[in-house]
Amino acid sequence: MIDYASTVTVAAYLGERLRQAGVSHLFGVPGDFNLNLLDGLAEVPGLRWTGSPNELGAGYAADAYARTRGLAALITTYGVGELSAINAVAGSAAEDAPVLHIVGSPRTGTVAAGALVHHTLADGDFGHFHRAYAEISVTTEVLTADRAGEQIDAVIVAARRERKPAYLSVPQDLALHHIPAAPLREPLKITSDPIAVRGFSAAVRELLTRAERPVLVVGQLAARYRLGERIAGLGLPMVTQLAAKGVIDEGTPGYLGDYAGTMLDPVPAAAVDAADVVLHLGSVQTAELTGFFSARPIDDRTVWTSATVSGVGEQRFEDVLFPDAVEAVAAALGASPAATVGASPAATVGASPTASAPHSGPDDDELTQAGLWRALQEWLPEHTALIADTGTAYWGALSLRLPAGTTFVGQPIWNSIGWALPAVLGQGLAEPDRRPVLMIGDGAAQMTIQELGTIAAAGLRPVILLLNNRGYTIERALQSPQAVYNDVTPWNWRALVAGLTGPETDYHHAATPTELDKALRGAGDHPDRLAFIEVQLDAYDTPPLLRRLAERATAAAKGAS
Amino acid sequence: MIDYASTVTVAAYLGERLRQAGVSHLFGVPGDFNLNLLDGLAEVPGLRWTGSPNELGAGYAADAYARTRGLAALITTYGVGELSAINAVAGSAAEDAPVLHIVGSPRTGTVAAGALVHHTLADGDFGHFHRAYAEISVTTEVLTADRAGEQIDAVIVAARRERKPAYLSVPQDLALHHIPAAPLREPLKITSDPIAVRGFSAAVRELLTRAERPVLVVGQLAARYRLGERIAGLGLPMVTQLAAKGVIDEGTPGYLGDYAGTMLDPVPAAAVDAADVVLHLGSVQTAELTGFFSARPIDDRTVWTSATVSGVGEQRFEDVLFPDAVEAVAAALGASPAATVGASPAATVGASPTASAPHSGPDDDELTQAGLWRALQEWLPEHTALIADTGTAYWGALSLRLPAGTTFVGQPIWNSIGWALPAVLGQGLAEPDRRPVLMIGDGAAQMTIQELGTIAAAGLRPVILLLNNRGYTIERALQSPQAVYNDVTPWNWRALVAGLTGPETDYHHAATPTELDKALRGAGDHPDRLAFIEVQLDAYDTPPLLRRLAERATAAAKGAS
Repeated sequence: MIDYASTVTVAAYLGERLRQAGVSHLFGVPGDFNLNLLDGLAEVPGLRWTGSPNELGAGYAADAYARTRGLAALITTYGVGELSAINAVAGSAAEDAPVLHIVGSPRTGTVAAGALVHHTLADGDFGHFHRAYAEISVTTEVLTADRAGEQIDAVIVAARRERKPAYLSVPQDLALHHIPAAPLREPLKITSDPIAVRGFSAAVRELLTRAERPVLVVGQLAARYRLGERIAGLGLPMVTQLAAKGVIDEGTPGYLGDYAGTMLDPVPAAAVDAADVVLHLGSVQTAELTGFFSARPIDDRTVWTSATVSGVGEQRFEDVLFPDAVEAVAAALGASPAATVGASPAATVGASPTASAPHSGPDDDELTQAGLWRALQEWLPEHTALIADTGTAYWGALSLRLPAGTTFVGQPIWNSIGWALPAVLGQGLAEPDRRPVLMIGDGAAQMTIQELGTIAAAGLRPVILLLNNRGYTIERALQSPQAVYNDVTPWNWRALVAGLTGPETDYHHAATPTELDKALRGAGDHPDRLAFIEVQLDAYDTPPLLRRLAERATAAAKGAS
Repeated sequence: MIDYASTVTVAAYLGERLRQAGVSHLFGVPGDFNLNLLDGLAEVPGLRWTGSPNELGAGYAADAYARTRGLAALITTYGVGELSAINAVAGSAAEDAPVLHIVGSPRTGTVAAGALVHHTLADGDFGHFHRAYAEISVTTEVLTADRAGEQIDAVIVAARRERKPAYLSVPQDLALHHIPAAPLREPLKITSDPIAVRGFSAAVRELLTRAERPVLVVGQLAARYRLGERIAGLGLPMVTQLAAKGVIDEGTPGYLGDYAGTMLDPVPAAAVDAADVVLHLGSVQTAELTGFFSARPIDDRTVWTSATVSGVGEQRFEDVLFPDAVEAVAAALGASPAATVGASPAATVGASPTASAPHSGPDDDELTQAGLWRALQEWLPEHTALIADTGTAYWGALSLRLPAGTTFVGQPIWNSIGWALPAVLGQGLAEPDRRPVLMIGDGAAQMTIQELGTIAAAGLRPVILLLNNRGYTIERALQSPQAVYNDVTPWNWRALVAGLTGPETDYHHAATPTELDKALRGAGDHPDRLAFIEVQLDAYDTPPLLRRLAERATAAAKGAS
């Protein structure tokens, strides 16, 4: 129990604020500069330390946790630790995952004196890594004795508001310093400017007044805020960006499918092209998500929304948080004829080339990408978290029709291979009642394999499909298919799994459709066991969507040169 | 053959410059933005691609290679790749390892347009990662079509001059762009200002005129430039910083041992205190290397040298490269009475607490840290590269007397655990005739274990001693010994080694002195095989030097608070 009239340590204050924001796990790696902080956080009830073998893995785990919980805490040590995590945290910036990165740093006196200590460049400048982090963080603070509470509040508010990573450096000597507990009585609130929300809603209503064929484009912020059902209920025809796959239940009336300009199915693209108003709810206009900029651009017939700013064409409304923007759109629809627009045309949804390919049943031929995704489509249970790493795994998984209650987790903007294995740790701890199913290539899994041990030790029992095609097949598809640099050192995955996990794990090898079917059934029958399925695939076999992506990327490169 | 009258691709120009500087291996990970670069480099004779599972491992391997070869090339892709390596490259900055980090980046047109593409923060700003790298690099260049050759020359010269990492961003569309080959006719030269060298030498001579008891303090630059023999021949009493362990052959007349203020043996410390002139040859004054600032400070009786600047007291001489500074000191000694100072006092060298402890021979008791280092001392063959990771491994290895021709590779400033396993790859490829012997803790090895596969696949056959004490024992020694965050997930190392390497590897388990002796003998008898020895140690057992370090660190922290 906190005595609000008294003081608490900086670590306890920080821990309580994290708890209030829905955090119950701490990710990271200890190091001498953060030990006071870890000792202080260990005293906070309701926070569980989940150490990782290295900081990159911890950062990826935090990224996935932040997506689901709305905030994650990543704890590293100065220099060596924080820099090892920076790729993961940059990914959180690209993908709207609010990770608070807390770095245990040298003592205030050491820094003030410019003393030459370990984990520095031995040049007396203690600002290097903080400045590097300023490039990828929404805000950064180096904690001071006087302003500690206020600084902690500021970084947490910023991360949650902007859905971006924030950075907090905690000097070793301040982690157990005492500060007033009083502010903790009131949990931090994150609110929009109500006047801006009303203004935005009026502007949307105005635009919709003369609209007959409005269409919604749903993006990744809808996934981060779990607003799929709310948006599905708006009653407009809608499409999803690939970054929001699975956010709208595929049976929703008016749902037309995934949209990435002319790169994907023509039905959703035609609906967007024919719309007289396009409402973007949390979308992002990157090359891959817009079919290499073949999507309809933002113009004065467009409503757009981001984490904190929304607009209509060139009109901007600051301080409108995304969930309030969605409500503002809902209100505008309620007051406009557009709200009564039926969910037409009745489209065939999810009929992807892979999932609908003819199916001859299990057999003893070599397994192909087509066969893999077909088998997965048939097997995929309800209410799982399907996590797909960049590469053939992601571009194959996009073609799956998702069963009810299944969420889809990918990284289509940052595209850092290896992210998805530690993401299983973060997602699994964030939502323990949803079994993770991971699809990952062998080149990607080699990046971050040590987290398999953490996943098992944390008691998670995911199904892991390792797509073994002996290297970087996405790169073989893009360029120089025979280049040796795309081959990775072959590993004995069966032995490796035995090395990293214990008797709770079932290893399966699947080189044929029959073996894959058996392995998937085994995994489904034993939700209490970790299933690791090594799927043997040809080095040059790719899912159809990846081939389309490669064609578009090559064409775009040619156009540019 | 290069036609110097014609043009070459940017990649070929870069590759040839690397070759001229002594580079014959390229470290890194492919990614779509660097594939043109890799394809171009593959055409350069004499350069071998050595891909790693992840960029942190590749960066550490490059660090070790740069120490030995005087330059290394690390190749990564924009954003996701380069950021994963930044901890390794920052370590190279701290430890004076000249790594050229070459990043394949998006097309110039994409960057100019601020287009939103993958591997970015989706904010149109392509400068974030370049600016982060500017914090830790001696220079950075983003290649342009007009100045490509000149920019490549500039980064290579800067890295080699300053012995620090440099950063070169190569846009995808410029990697195969043609530029004049003519400059390649002349290899790049790195020279001092001869007037400054003469000035420095005169100042040293002047200081030595009245000197009767001068002492040399030898630091890490002497190791990087392999100047140990030259310095040993100067005929002065000398001590080594821990960062230069092994640089001076321990049988050298006048060599007094390792010096870190009052933290280590009193003999070298007394000699430095009693000296009337102290000549620092490439030393660094960090807390750990100075015994927490108990070493004699730099004053007006001090000669000092760095990579490019040397001085006497407050007098600075710019543009004096370290090897020329050593020659300038030699010349000054030749012209001064100090040069005739005998190698006195005749000190007992290397009599460290561990190595000289009584030895009862192999037995079946549990293995202790003391027993481990004793066994290693007896076994350690000549002409190896002893590589010690931060932690008990490093602080134990410091107490070893090194056999003839043995080099010692550690990371005492940056102290990033996990560095030493990939360092085996870089060191082993840089000097294939010297067998690497690695000492590394289990917590450290978990950080970067994937490189074990690369090491084996590259044909290296090191002896790897894994000090398994089930966690971060250096942190247990520093603070909160019982804290759970210092425990790591236990791995089955035997299975793991089988997973990452093939039949070329012998795994040994050693829990007793007898088993360790047998394993070491086996490793020694089979230089054609990779030996992985898992050494079972108590979680709280530490080498004596580490205990002393912990006492000093704790005292320093108390003094500061």
